[in-house]
Amino acid sequence: MFNLFHSKPDLIVHSEQPLNAEPPLARLRAAYITPQPDFYVRTHGTIPHLDTAKHRLHVGGRVATPLDLSMNELRDRFPRRAVTAVMPCAGNRRADMQQVRPVSGDPWAGGAIGNAEWAGVALVDVLRAAGAEENEGLHVAFSSCDECEVEGERFRYEASIAMTKALSPEVLLAYEMNGEALAPEHGAPLRAVVPGYAGVRSPKWLASIEVQDHTSNGHVQARDYKLFPPDVTKETANWSKGVTIYDMPLNAAICEPAPHAELKAGPMTTLRGYAIATARAIVRVDVSSDGGRTWRQAELEHDPEAPWSWTFWQASLDLCAGEHELAVRAWDSAGQTQPSLPDDTWNFKGYLSAAWHRVPVTVG
Amino acid sequence: MFNLFHSKPDLIVHSEQPLNAEPPLARLRAAYITPQPDFYVRTHGTIPHLDTAKHRLHVGGRVATPLDLSMNELRDRFPRRAVTAVMPCAGNRRADMQQVRPVSGDPWAGGAIGNAEWAGVALVDVLRAAGAEENEGLHVAFSSCDECEVEGERFRYEASIAMTKALSPEVLLAYEMNGEALAPEHGAPLRAVVPGYAGVRSPKWLASIEVQDHTSNGHVQARDYKLFPPDVTKETANWSKGVTIYDMPLNAAICEPAPHAELKAGPMTTLRGYAIATARAIVRVDVSSDGGRTWRQAELEHDPEAPWSWTFWQASLDLCAGEHELAVRAWDSAGQTQPSLPDDTWNFKGYLSAAWHRVPVTVG
Repeated sequence: MFNLFHSKPDLIVHSEQPLNAEPPLARLRAAYITPQPDFYVRTHGTIPHLDTAKHRLHVGGRVATPLDLSMNELRDRFPRRAVTAVMPCAGNRRADMQQVRPVSGDPWAGGAIGNAEWAGVALVDVLRAAGAEENEGLHVAFSSCDECEVEGERFRYEASIAMTKALSPEVLLAYEMNGEALAPEHGAPLRAVVPGYAGVRSPKWLASIEVQDHTSNGHVQARDYKLFPPDVTKETANWSKGVTIYDMPLNAAICEPAPHAELKAGPMTTLRGYAIATARAIVRVDVSSDGGRTWRQAELEHDPEAPWSWTFWQASLDLCAGEHELAVRAWDSAGQTQPSLPDDTWNFKGYLSAAWHRVPVTVG
Repeated sequence: MFNLFHSKPDLIVHSEQPLNAEPPLARLRAAYITPQPDFYVRTHGTIPHLDTAKHRLHVGGRVATPLDLSMNELRDRFPRRAVTAVMPCAGNRRADMQQVRPVSGDPWAGGAIGNAEWAGVALVDVLRAAGAEENEGLHVAFSSCDECEVEGERFRYEASIAMTKALSPEVLLAYEMNGEALAPEHGAPLRAVVPGYAGVRSPKWLASIEVQDHTSNGHVQARDYKLFPPDVTKETANWSKGVTIYDMPLNAAICEPAPHAELKAGPMTTLRGYAIATARAIVRVDVSSDGGRTWRQAELEHDPEAPWSWTFWQASLDLCAGEHELAVRAWDSAGQTQPSLPDDTWNFKGYLSAAWHRVPVTVG
């Protein structure tokens, strides 16, 4: 297995096997388009090193004409499509929940997210070439080439999305990221990219697509990545009753300054971060230097040509000497805002951690 | 002017002129489709009593063929369309914010909302009959027949929606509510119905529709119904900078028991209420008897044939003797939930009050 740890000493590695690593937040915030080397890596098993020349994509299930396509055939038969989209991990910011009560999974800070220019072919083009049924109740299941193991159970990564989303033009089968071929850890030679959804629905090392009348039966879809109420534990969870995570709630993070930074008293301290609202636009971001008692508004930066992208924000505050709890919260176009405390969204899997992001700093 | 107060002594009347009244919450919760007499009344001026036989609708602006339609022509020329939709007032639950700091506007409890079967014609059908331009940047402005006055300024009620929403099939020009002709206080003989949006964008007593390249310049659109940050006051508000309220955030209310109810200790106390999520589905509602320290899940009731409707919920709790703070919070399909305190969304106009609804009760 390719060991990313040695090649990228500057990612924060939560786990080496499977490899799970995120960039420091200041580096993440340095570029609106996240470079591949700085893009978080979330894997559930091995990182396959596939031969692009030999790789094939199978398209089957409820289709008129099953397809079996080489990468060259995919490029030649279908128009190239591109979308700039943020891809958040469902477990991003889990570290905040971990502070409330223990949760399972890696303690991602706010770096399990990235915004990239994805390019490849539109899933809808491939589905139509195969003559897929397009009924609203159908699902499109993706299957990968990796080898995963959880508690002795071995499986391949499989996940599905509803047909209604699969037919949306922004959903890609991507072979490029930021104008480059995908790196092995980002899914080379082919991955799904489902803008607006948690990364779990965008499988890497894509081997097959199946049109079917049910969601994926695979481990990842059926017994993971579901949202449970706070009174449910690993032992009591009924996986058929959890809410499957597809699109993501409103969220925001402070990328600079870092937690426990020691800042010099001066005229202005600049806070920088990101915000996401997958179904709507971010219209306002508030920042606080007193843990949320008072707020002021940040300046927003968003590419109007890239509606699936994240929003960057920046604000300068005049901080007196002493201890401060910086906080951020975002608002979308429907006047929706975030809950204030990680306890408000706590769940035993630590998913969708989306309370106000709080960063303690000392001004000397 | 028709005085509703005398005809409906069982509505809670916040203001008689203009008439603003809401039903008690237990009555609101008694029926999934809110009867006209129980439907809240929000007016900004007079309640016109229009002659249906003489009323005409003008359609103009950026259209190929301006129209001037009688009610009979409207019914005869266009197919009848129906939609069941909840219509929340932007100020619903303002009373909760009022407890934090004073806000302007009537102190609506949770009854400034209702779910009705609206019928009439589709706005898109009328726009196409007029040959309206359909560019994404255009707006559709509605103008009413009422006479309003705010601080000495007299105006007619005018509001607009973006062309993209105006072309959606669920947006109606309605002449019926629950199979009956509209009552005068609900907009007879014709009103707009814009499902998913705050009631402010569904003008009553509709006189004209204008296709234009800007949002409405009228008072209601330009200098009211905008969301401001908590540090902005009536005196400092720059109305061009507020966020115009169209669609609504996630919300939920406890309709039974009533605040300060004295309940008998017994095996079970039943809580009932509603929840709304305008862009997504409500997937879970949590209730608490200890102010949100612990939660359990309510049963949900939603008409799958009516996606624009509200969700009803119900839960039975075993309450010991003493004081309890009941609370409710809803979750949508993206794992979005509500902020916990009214202070978290406070704004000087008291709009979009959507924190956990809390109801203190005594069990004896």
